Amino acid sequence: MNKSPDELLKELTLTEKASLCAGLNMWMTKGIERLNIPPVHMYDGTNGIRKTNSNEEMGITTENVPATCYPTGSAIGSSWNTALLHEVGVALGQESKTMEVELLLGPGVNMKRTPLGGRNFEYYSEDPCLTGELGAAFINGIQSEGVGASVKHFAGNNQEFEKMVTSSEIDERTLREIYLSAFERIIKKSDPWTVMCSYNLLNGTYTSENEHLLNDILREEWGYDGVVLSDWTAVNDRIRGLKAGLDLEMPGPAHYNAKAIVEAVQEGKLSEEQLDKSVSRILKLVERVTGNKAADREANADYHTLARKAAAESIVLLKNDNAVLPLRPETASSIAVIGRFAVKPRIQGAGSAKVTPTRVDIPLDEIKEMAGTLATVNYTAGYPEDDSVNEDLIKESVTLARNADVAVLFVGQPEYAESEMHDLKDIELPEHQVKLIQAVAAVQPKCIVVTSSGSALVMRPWVQHVPAVIHSWLSGQGMGRAIAEVLFGYTNPSGKLSETFPVKLSDNPSHMRIRGENGKLYYREGLFVGYRYYDRKELAPQFPFGHGLSYTTFAYTDLEVVQHGTCVKVSFQLANTGKRRGKEVVQLYVHDEECKWTRPEKELKAFAKVELDPGEKQTIVFELEERDFSYFNTKYNRWVADTGYFQILLGSSSKDIRITGRLHCDFGKEEITFHKFSLLSEWVSDPAAKAVLEECLNEMNEHVIDKVFLNEEFIGFWEDFPMVKVFQMFGQTWMNERSPDEVIQELIERVERVRNN
Amino acid sequence: MNKSPDELLKELTLTEKASLCAGLNMWMTKGIERLNIPPVHMYDGTNGIRKTNSNEEMGITTENVPATCYPTGSAIGSSWNTALLHEVGVALGQESKTMEVELLLGPGVNMKRTPLGGRNFEYYSEDPCLTGELGAAFINGIQSEGVGASVKHFAGNNQEFEKMVTSSEIDERTLREIYLSAFERIIKKSDPWTVMCSYNLLNGTYTSENEHLLNDILREEWGYDGVVLSDWTAVNDRIRGLKAGLDLEMPGPAHYNAKAIVEAVQEGKLSEEQLDKSVSRILKLVERVTGNKAADREANADYHTLARKAAAESIVLLKNDNAVLPLRPETASSIAVIGRFAVKPRIQGAGSAKVTPTRVDIPLDEIKEMAGTLATVNYTAGYPEDDSVNEDLIKESVTLARNADVAVLFVGQPEYAESEMHDLKDIELPEHQVKLIQAVAAVQPKCIVVTSSGSALVMRPWVQHVPAVIHSWLSGQGMGRAIAEVLFGYTNPSGKLSETFPVKLSDNPSHMRIRGENGKLYYREGLFVGYRYYDRKELAPQFPFGHGLSYTTFAYTDLEVVQHGTCVKVSFQLANTGKRRGKEVVQLYVHDEECKWTRPEKELKAFAKVELDPGEKQTIVFELEERDFSYFNTKYNRWVADTGYFQILLGSSSKDIRITGRLHCDFGKEEITFHKFSLLSEWVSDPAAKAVLEECLNEMNEHVIDKVFLNEEFIGFWEDFPMVKVFQMFGQTWMNERSPDEVIQELIERVERVRNN
Repeated sequence: MNKSPDELLKELTLTEKASLCAGLNMWMTKGIERLNIPPVHMYDGTNGIRKTNSNEEMGITTENVPATCYPTGSAIGSSWNTALLHEVGVALGQESKTMEVELLLGPGVNMKRTPLGGRNFEYYSEDPCLTGELGAAFINGIQSEGVGASVKHFAGNNQEFEKMVTSSEIDERTLREIYLSAFERIIKKSDPWTVMCSYNLLNGTYTSENEHLLNDILREEWGYDGVVLSDWTAVNDRIRGLKAGLDLEMPGPAHYNAKAIVEAVQEGKLSEEQLDKSVSRILKLVERVTGNKAADREANADYHTLARKAAAESIVLLKNDNAVLPLRPETASSIAVIGRFAVKPRIQGAGSAKVTPTRVDIPLDEIKEMAGTLATVNYTAGYPEDDSVNEDLIKESVTLARNADVAVLFVGQPEYAESEMHDLKDIELPEHQVKLIQAVAAVQPKCIVVTSSGSALVMRPWVQHVPAVIHSWLSGQGMGRAIAEVLFGYTNPSGKLSETFPVKLSDNPSHMRIRGENGKLYYREGLFVGYRYYDRKELAPQFPFGHGLSYTTFAYTDLEVVQHGTCVKVSFQLANTGKRRGKEVVQLYVHDEECKWTRPEKELKAFAKVELDPGEKQTIVFELEERDFSYFNTKYNRWVADTGYFQILLGSSSKDIRITGRLHCDFGKEEITFHKFSLLSEWVSDPAAKAVLEECLNEMNEHVIDKVFLNEEFIGFWEDFPMVKVFQMFGQTWMNERSPDEVIQELIERVERVRNN
Repeated sequence: MNKSPDELLKELTLTEKASLCAGLNMWMTKGIERLNIPPVHMYDGTNGIRKTNSNEEMGITTENVPATCYPTGSAIGSSWNTALLHEVGVALGQESKTMEVELLLGPGVNMKRTPLGGRNFEYYSEDPCLTGELGAAFINGIQSEGVGASVKHFAGNNQEFEKMVTSSEIDERTLREIYLSAFERIIKKSDPWTVMCSYNLLNGTYTSENEHLLNDILREEWGYDGVVLSDWTAVNDRIRGLKAGLDLEMPGPAHYNAKAIVEAVQEGKLSEEQLDKSVSRILKLVERVTGNKAADREANADYHTLARKAAAESIVLLKNDNAVLPLRPETASSIAVIGRFAVKPRIQGAGSAKVTPTRVDIPLDEIKEMAGTLATVNYTAGYPEDDSVNEDLIKESVTLARNADVAVLFVGQPEYAESEMHDLKDIELPEHQVKLIQAVAAVQPKCIVVTSSGSALVMRPWVQHVPAVIHSWLSGQGMGRAIAEVLFGYTNPSGKLSETFPVKLSDNPSHMRIRGENGKLYYREGLFVGYRYYDRKELAPQFPFGHGLSYTTFAYTDLEVVQHGTCVKVSFQLANTGKRRGKEVVQLYVHDEECKWTRPEKELKAFAKVELDPGEKQTIVFELEERDFSYFNTKYNRWVADTGYFQILLGSSSKDIRITGRLHCDFGKEEITFHKFSLLSEWVSDPAAKAVLEECLNEMNEHVIDKVFLNEEFIGFWEDFPMVKVFQMFGQTWMNERSPDEVIQELIERVERVRNN
């Protein structure tokens, strides 16, 4: 591109402009040769690149080129490691360049509202702070290589069932605090080149044409100036979309919409200025992409090693009674490996995020390699391909386990259970697998269960019978190696659950209404998603948000919390008190003691992953801002931090708070603004207003049967009554033809006069 | 009144009409002497009449005339006895006449959404079927005496906090199935003379001016033609109110609004026809009231005896381990009565429902009377007036209990905890009372706890330590006698909980957001109110909905379920298998096995209270209609019963189902109507549509890269995609300038043509 977007805009015809607003085909934007505007090549990819085999056959169901498959979102979300996300982003940026991919359609940062969400494996977490920090690091990594990212799916798409005809009905506060919060953080911290809108409607309007979402919030409030593109076929009414700020329709060419745009401009239904805004943003994207063409395309690092490292950081050690792990050759000289996933690991989910991996580490092979000559390793499949109950396979497994020193069971959600387009039916393991675990655990006390799934699992039927559980998620092509390293202690596990594992499915917050109904899906649990719900309901999860064990131990001491202006500085000492080098994920939660409105018991506001040698100590410092203490107040339509007491909770999980500080925060306060419906309690809380009111009531009392005196008893009973209604109730024979509205209006004016004197 | 409403309407001036639309004062409508239109006298009363002492000083805070105080709503709701409600209604009608009350402002039939609702004691239940049946019986009783009833508060007022400035945000299905359902039943079964609107807004509009509620649903759909009056000061915009169908503003005279009405008519903002409708309805009410003036006003039955009987039917025996109750003189020759409520019983709540009772039975006196010379009865206060912790009182109680054969503890919510205008803060007993129970139970194994409250109570800290619990609610002036009768077995208890008693407060369904916030209160639990929630969440309550023990036992056998046309007949045998005469409340719940949308696990659809002698058997028959199998389908905006399997569950509580039947119901089915967003799954479910679609796809496949074949794999993945989006995804190079909408439109027309051939 040898001209600037502004220059090009002047030379483009109306028809050309309209044509630029949709893709050329499935995976490219339209270029315009006449003006030397090249196309942009974009491909799916939240945990790897899914690029079609050929440039001629750019289909959605066609074959793809091999590419590195990293841990899926829910896996790498459990790393809590922003540096790792950045590193993976850089590697994906590099690999994209070698594959001539200029825009990578990821990351997916939607909240995990329900464990049944079919795309949960693509998303990081149930918490917006964790998701936002990880997403921003990932995008900064990709874009540092001159490749664009696309943060998706904006917004409120948290399940698959009938998502294209269902409106996510989310109240404004919940929208801001939960469902938009990660996007906001990402926009502000990493400025993604593109944002992808979602399929669903949000509060009645498709997100692809939602003014409130795309214009008021994303553009105006957050100041976003990149390209908003549609998820594939998410466009409904193209003209409304353009007006709301949806720049690019995918896939293209959507000739019918190009025609509709031209007609709308000609008929004055869409201003050309509005169209120019979108075209200009698309041209800027082309410029960004081509401006980086010069960058090194030949980088060819050892991505597989990074995939292994990422998997190792993602795996979560859920349970480890009596330190049965790591395996020691002296006590585990024969190992029974049971379960088909040991030879055919589930490294990823299905749908648009499915990558054709460059290679795959097989857990059994890696275990054998690490066991070497010190231990014998025997394998049996454990369960059939079709997940039917097969007693023979169970018997075989029991025999193998009984004759070994230790059994390692590989189980998990079946392949078909987790996919884009289809929500999960359940989060229990298949019946056969449950029986298998129970049977093996009955004969082998050293029974280690390795679970695979992209979403939380219910473990109630078996977890109390086994000493150790490793949750390996769907951790990409290096997963096999990483599991083996954790088993043998070459990796000290450091993953922490990025989502709550409930005791049973019906415990989960969205269980009242998981699926939409006749086009509406009410987000009934409101703010209380994930751990916020379990806290509020005083409901114990199987494994809480933020939980994950290590082969070493950590101590938290010397907490200090101080407010300086609008900044609150939190510092404390973290020490490795165990015998191995290891990493701790320290989690900082904030609790508001005084808010008039209901707030979650605690909210994650910062975290850090810290590596320490045995005996090593480090001072950890967090700096919190006003926003970290704020909630979204719908009355003022903005974030508000109350003046009052807050608690700072530091811990190793959301349920394992190690150290707590308390401080009084003051971010300023406003004078009451009186209006027609101001309550009696508000009137008496302001001395000037109270005096004015009393004067008025004295006058009224001369004309009425029920006299009103602002004593404790009266206020106690009537405090929630708006003053206008107090006059309606008690002042009828006094007001006469004057209306209660007029009385209130006069009172408000008198208060104003007193305040101004 | 010597002229008919129609004649009067012609003679009234505009100013007179306007003045009729508000009360004369706090408790009367305006009469018009010129035309011989008398006023109507109305007073509060859900469980008794609250009439001012004098006709001159008609205040809201002035003193009241003594009147019979019956059990409050939640108490009598637990009687599950429609005949009793009718009898109490008749008695209240008679007493009203003797007191010159022409319209009684009750019953209150709102649902108990949260146990913290300040007016819960006034309401019957958490279930609309139970509430509706009881409310209708009560109103039919009152109105049979020529006195009007006012069913309230219509609708969606389920808590007190800032209710006058808070909008209850309730989705349409929940509104219909839960919050309007009892009102609907009552309107249809008892045609109350008046309906009282509530204070709150409903989905953004004050109920006093809510067209959808007052006009579309109440008038148009339910055919209601009585008077709608405002709760006291609930009027906001009087003109909007009249347009929506709010006939009468209370209290009056609201001269300012009379003036506003006249002006609105003169300025053409309100049609006189609309005003006439309201005036006409008010005149009809006057006619109804005066038409019955001739009725016997001197009836003076023994209302106190009825109050005792009603209390006896309301009390619920929650627990009775080892048949510790009823007390037998041979094993209980000394009785320790502990707790101030034994001498100062809480017989009712506070606020507008508070009656000045004609007399009050004192539990301690009644116990002493029944014990007679067979047992000694000693009393101690147990806890101080202010509910502070007082170890001396506990010690005293322990000593008394230790030296007795049995201890009866009277505990409950303090007086100040439950009131109109103020929600409860908690549903635990005060700390002192908990300690008292624990201390007494530790020394006296025969420790019987009698609890008083208008709402559910949390009993977790102590219930496992005591063998027996009697919940006496707030059961009116005969409560003391009724408790004594239950203790000694003169009454065989037959009350069943009309609301769930949770293990802890946070278990309750509305716990996510009990209070409104900045003017909005989202009914987040949706349909899942009360037992519907505990079922759905697989959460065990302390005592379930419908639970209540008897001193005898009952058996359920010989269930038969048959569909005849649109009627389903259910019959079974109930037998008293114990040794005492007693009453069983049989409960019929319906479970829908196949609905596409989420339904509660079971819903109460019928019940009966049956009295049997030991060994006696009776055949119970219920007839269910299509509506009893229906849910409210928001797509069609009407009630829909699926064709498919249903279960009929009969039991002694919602958790004690004794006998279950299953039947396939068929109430007819409709052809699919295709539209733009019809899903692929819908297209392939209709053979004609599928054929048309396949033909179209064959044509498309010749022009596209990703070819679409309607095989199992394709349908399996894409079934939730609307067909219009399938064309957007796969048919871009085929459609060209034809839009996907046009393609779908053409397909729909082709299906129509095939169907019509």
